[in-house]
Amino acid sequence: MRIAELSRHSGTSIPSIKFYLRERLLTAGTATGRNQAEYGDGHLYRLRLIRALIDVGGLTVAAARDVLAAVDTPELPPHFLLGAAHGALNRPRRRDADDPSWRSARDEVVALVRARGWHVDDDCPDFDHAADAVAAFRALGQDDLLECMETYADAAELVAAREVDTVIARGEPARMVEGVVTGTILGEAVLNALRRLAQQDASARRLVDTGDLA
Amino acid sequence: MRIAELSRHSGTSIPSIKFYLRERLLTAGTATGRNQAEYGDGHLYRLRLIRALIDVGGLTVAAARDVLAAVDTPELPPHFLLGAAHGALNRPRRRDADDPSWRSARDEVVALVRARGWHVDDDCPDFDHAADAVAAFRALGQDDLLECMETYADAAELVAAREVDTVIARGEPARMVEGVVTGTILGEAVLNALRRLAQQDASARRLVDTGDLA
Repeated sequence: MRIAELSRHSGTSIPSIKFYLRERLLTAGTATGRNQAEYGDGHLYRLRLIRALIDVGGLTVAAARDVLAAVDTPELPPHFLLGAAHGALNRPRRRDADDPSWRSARDEVVALVRARGWHVDDDCPDFDHAADAVAAFRALGQDDLLECMETYADAAELVAAREVDTVIARGEPARMVEGVVTGTILGEAVLNALRRLAQQDASARRLVDTGDLA
Repeated sequence: MRIAELSRHSGTSIPSIKFYLRERLLTAGTATGRNQAEYGDGHLYRLRLIRALIDVGGLTVAAARDVLAAVDTPELPPHFLLGAAHGALNRPRRRDADDPSWRSARDEVVALVRARGWHVDDDCPDFDHAADAVAAFRALGQDDLLECMETYADAAELVAAREVDTVIARGEPARMVEGVVTGTILGEAVLNALRRLAQQDASARRLVDTGDLA
């Protein structure tokens, strides 16, 4: 197909496609004339992956290029492929970690994860993100809510097992990366919305006369 | 205590305290002189609640005032008090809902919630947020990941039950509102970070030789 068709089928503008070509996220088409090239389904598929990384995942072009390099390395073990996609989604934290109460919150999260036997690197930024919230709970005097931590971890194990099984079942490396990116980002949005809906239900069940709910 | 002490104990600047006084989020202290007033523990406690609403919850002053009005209405049934706090945290959506594939995604989420017998209003914005993500999964051709929906709902029920029990156990209306705000916002951050950690563990368990993980 021509670039115009590639644009239409992928829902990506021609200037964006040309940008991805220049940045080498997308390989060139087969030249069919001085200013014409022919693109195949592989290009269409790659464009979908690029958009998942950049539009859904919010990745920079440089981060997207790193993930695509992993996709293009067939000898890479799948766990490292998934790890590359997953790691690229992690926003670096702005604050520094000199605050002792923050350090203690982080240690607490690491201890919880270790007690569960989870295999995660000690320097994973997700520990920092969890520590931010745990430290904020304490600073605001909401320590009793930290009793929910084990339940959060139970819920996390439950969804992660299901999600990772679904992504691995895809088999094909590029499709697996696409699944990590969309599943991590969009799955989070679905889970958070359902949690809020479930909170409203839990409140209604406990505080409203059951006759009123029928 | 004087306003300077109130500022120090609450970690809130004097200009901010004066702003909250002018905006009537905080009641005036007892006048002890022409330009002096005395503040009590009630003021300190109220300031902590205001900061939870505005700094943690990201509420506007107007939205915070609505929640505080609910806190100050002792005859309000607790479910409506929690609902007022919870509802104020919901950001309005920007996009409109004319797209048939978005409508169908929303219907799907409503059907899932109804099948579980959750008591939630049909016009709750959380349905819209979930629909955004479900429609995006489909638009990106990631339909298999929607098989995780029931698992997300299981996890949501699990955490919501625990969280709502913890908040209700507080008993006091202002403390319950504080729990809804901090629990909803910070709990989401903890849950999302733990989910990502659990995903890394799930990937390692399935894809890495177990001997390597020991």
